[in-house]
Amino acid sequence: MGTWFTEKQTDHFGITAKVNRSLHSEKTDFQDLEMLETAEWGNMLVLDDMVMTTEKDEFVYHEMVAHVPLFTHPNPKNVLVVGGGDGGVIREVLKHESVEKATLVEIDGKVIEYSKKYLPSIAGALEDERVEVKVDDGFMHIAKSESEYDVIMVDSTEPVGPAVNLFSKGFYEGIAKALKEDGIFVAQTDNPWFKADLIRQVYSDVKETFPITKVYTANIPTYPSGLWTFTMGSKVHDPLQVKEERFEDIDTKYFTDEIHHACFALPKFVKDLTKE
Amino acid sequence: MGTWFTEKQTDHFGITAKVNRSLHSEKTDFQDLEMLETAEWGNMLVLDDMVMTTEKDEFVYHEMVAHVPLFTHPNPKNVLVVGGGDGGVIREVLKHESVEKATLVEIDGKVIEYSKKYLPSIAGALEDERVEVKVDDGFMHIAKSESEYDVIMVDSTEPVGPAVNLFSKGFYEGIAKALKEDGIFVAQTDNPWFKADLIRQVYSDVKETFPITKVYTANIPTYPSGLWTFTMGSKVHDPLQVKEERFEDIDTKYFTDEIHHACFALPKFVKDLTKE
Repeated sequence: MGTWFTEKQTDHFGITAKVNRSLHSEKTDFQDLEMLETAEWGNMLVLDDMVMTTEKDEFVYHEMVAHVPLFTHPNPKNVLVVGGGDGGVIREVLKHESVEKATLVEIDGKVIEYSKKYLPSIAGALEDERVEVKVDDGFMHIAKSESEYDVIMVDSTEPVGPAVNLFSKGFYEGIAKALKEDGIFVAQTDNPWFKADLIRQVYSDVKETFPITKVYTANIPTYPSGLWTFTMGSKVHDPLQVKEERFEDIDTKYFTDEIHHACFALPKFVKDLTKE
Repeated sequence: MGTWFTEKQTDHFGITAKVNRSLHSEKTDFQDLEMLETAEWGNMLVLDDMVMTTEKDEFVYHEMVAHVPLFTHPNPKNVLVVGGGDGGVIREVLKHESVEKATLVEIDGKVIEYSKKYLPSIAGALEDERVEVKVDDGFMHIAKSESEYDVIMVDSTEPVGPAVNLFSKGFYEGIAKALKEDGIFVAQTDNPWFKADLIRQVYSDVKETFPITKVYTANIPTYPSGLWTFTMGSKVHDPLQVKEERFEDIDTKYFTDEIHHACFALPKFVKDLTKE
């Protein structure tokens, strides 16, 4: 049989993946970090026993975090990514020619270090000259920023451990302040099969701060249930009003202009989470 | 830990679910049948070690097989379901008032028997007076039918074992003959992460027989990768041309009129499978 890594996604359900070998394992100041070479998914980053990203399916998450808000904004120049130390969101952000600066604020420098070493196709973009990498607390960075960013993406872990502050109403208010007057933010907000209450709460909290609040989804096979949600808060621009000519021709494997619109069509049981 | 059921969805990846108890287990004339009571998904039907349906997530598959073609057809009266002995597709078909008769042709009577016993919320619809249940070979049933059905749904197992004939070009030609002149058919066609070649082949085969051939997707957490595809062949009616007023108000948990359109927007790597 060999070695298998199993993530218990709930108390009663999980995924299991064959491991060729462990590339690295350590307890950082913030979390347990493991880098595994798997047979199905390529190299896999695991934090606190949860799959964060894999070489095979990472494109879905990273494209969908980045391109939906970036195409919703008419001219994004200054972009902030909170979390996301693997560099995948930054890689996608840099595909947009309008972007002049992309700042990454990751609390755990070890995530960056070992992503660069073992996930070079993902983290390589962190070396780009338009990128500034800060090893810092995202919550504090946001609190210090004012009218600075066009788009902010929150690429956090689950709302346990280091990311717990990133799912609070105060954080969304800070984001609104950190954004310019027509700014947009997106956060990953887990899955509706096992975390319905979280999605309902985040939607409700974001809606109190942002005039336009919408949930969209993507299929990510190694994440719990495979159906992942993202919650967008926007001050002015409506993602469903983007004109065809706004979409530049960028190289993607998941995102298309059709997906940009279709991802907001929610399954009924998910849509119901966004009703008062 | 207790007992866990693990389905190896590929040689190197799988899902694992806590089992409270086994309700039934037997080798039928066609396959290994197991009915498990699981802690996360409720009762679960397993055929040849593959999850077929669970009480918790069955609604996605059954709604998406049934409602997309049934709303694409302007007035479906006579419907055939090949396979689907659990009765879930039939339950959804019966939500359409226009349907006068729904025939189920399932090769394995044991699937029907134990679904009625252990999945009553799914299989109960098989008792409806509009339903005729035949324990028979779907391939042979299709071969004997001519200009008979408005909509045919192929709710098969994987293309191994008893269902292997249901993924052949000859079968799709037979379906075209069994349909009326404006008939529509849909087949479940597995997932694009692990079975890309199958989707490409089915799409190509169906396209040679049906003027309108389209692939759509749904998220099913207990199926491999969570991203499931369905391939539709239609003689006349285009699923993307359905008018708003065609949608009746039916009770669903996944399907909506927005999803009807959005489900045809394919992730780029899936869309690429439908190109020549």
